[in-house]
Amino acid sequence: MRTLYHMVTCPFSRTARLALGEKKLEFDPIIENIWLEREEFIDLNSAGTLPVLVEESGLVVNELYPLMEYLEEAYQDTPKLFEGTAATRVEIRRLCVWMNTKFFNEVYQKLVWEKVLKRHYLKQWADSSILREGTRSLKHHLQYLAILLEERDWLAGRTLTMADLVAAAHLSCIDFIGYISWEAHPVVKNWYACLKSRPSFRPLLLDHMTGVQPPSHYADLDF
Amino acid sequence: MRTLYHMVTCPFSRTARLALGEKKLEFDPIIENIWLEREEFIDLNSAGTLPVLVEESGLVVNELYPLMEYLEEAYQDTPKLFEGTAATRVEIRRLCVWMNTKFFNEVYQKLVWEKVLKRHYLKQWADSSILREGTRSLKHHLQYLAILLEERDWLAGRTLTMADLVAAAHLSCIDFIGYISWEAHPVVKNWYACLKSRPSFRPLLLDHMTGVQPPSHYADLDF
Repeated sequence: MRTLYHMVTCPFSRTARLALGEKKLEFDPIIENIWLEREEFIDLNSAGTLPVLVEESGLVVNELYPLMEYLEEAYQDTPKLFEGTAATRVEIRRLCVWMNTKFFNEVYQKLVWEKVLKRHYLKQWADSSILREGTRSLKHHLQYLAILLEERDWLAGRTLTMADLVAAAHLSCIDFIGYISWEAHPVVKNWYACLKSRPSFRPLLLDHMTGVQPPSHYADLDF
Repeated sequence: MRTLYHMVTCPFSRTARLALGEKKLEFDPIIENIWLEREEFIDLNSAGTLPVLVEESGLVVNELYPLMEYLEEAYQDTPKLFEGTAATRVEIRRLCVWMNTKFFNEVYQKLVWEKVLKRHYLKQWADSSILREGTRSLKHHLQYLAILLEERDWLAGRTLTMADLVAAAHLSCIDFIGYISWEAHPVVKNWYACLKSRPSFRPLLLDHMTGVQPPSHYADLDF
């Protein structure tokens, strides 16, 4: 069986889970606590990062960027996630970078890391000024997504693409810790509701983590 | 004419210049000082990052990942830089991530940013403990590249690929500020010498920046 090493609060792992789900590629998910630097895991990926996919053939695919491109190239009879003109494909990948670097640094690191992971792994309390910065940035990013979605059916254009999965994976991490006021962002909420109701999303809604109580709407399809 | 916005000390821009050079796609290079947040540039790329490619058609390609994949897809009659089996393509992209995140954080940020850019842009002096960390990490990374190159002709296998260009772009930035002791890493030196003698590399060897005096061997093909 295909295996995916992942973590509940890792947006890159969540993207991989969604992409495998959309392509209907079954996999055995294994939670890997990367902070432990487990020897067998470091043998698979010396960078110690997630996600890591291990195919039945033994092929190991480390990191999200190689994994996204690999799934698209290797499984050509599955739904395409980088579909469209050259300009659309550029836009899909630009949005992936936007979320995986800009949103990650400005929002994820300042909310999920600061609020949950720092306490969990370093036994340190959150810095409220950093949380405020993260909350402010989150609002700007949600406004940016709304601007895109006012002109497009999905983030990069007319069809669901990898850009939607990457963005939804990130937002689902922030929603997991209860930091999104959906009512203030109706356009983004509608788009997220469509994604949330897809079968690929179901496993993410069942996620749980010791010490974190997601808000009641997190797993609710009619939120 | 195709235009590339870049900076001399930006490894992502250097990769784009090398990739365009290898594919023999002519371009007009424009130095963009991103710290100024010039309005016309932010209109092109609201993330404010480099590189940015503007095609004659008007298509704007932001960020290195979309740019690398775009060049390969759009110019299929030019030399391939992601060539090989699925496993090789996974390895090429893994090495791109390795250099663009791990090497970038552990070496570039601790040497080029700390030694040159911090002084240039923030008027602050380098922190010697950070420089020592960067120097130590650089040694480990060069040893890692040597391990790969002892078994392979090029970084990802038998042919020159994007992985070589990304790695060479990063090393060229470090070499530009005189931090590489090539004699201590002969295997990597041989590989770098091969890259350095390619026509695509020539413009990089002519780079100059106010306040930085590259070592004499920087532009020397027989170093």
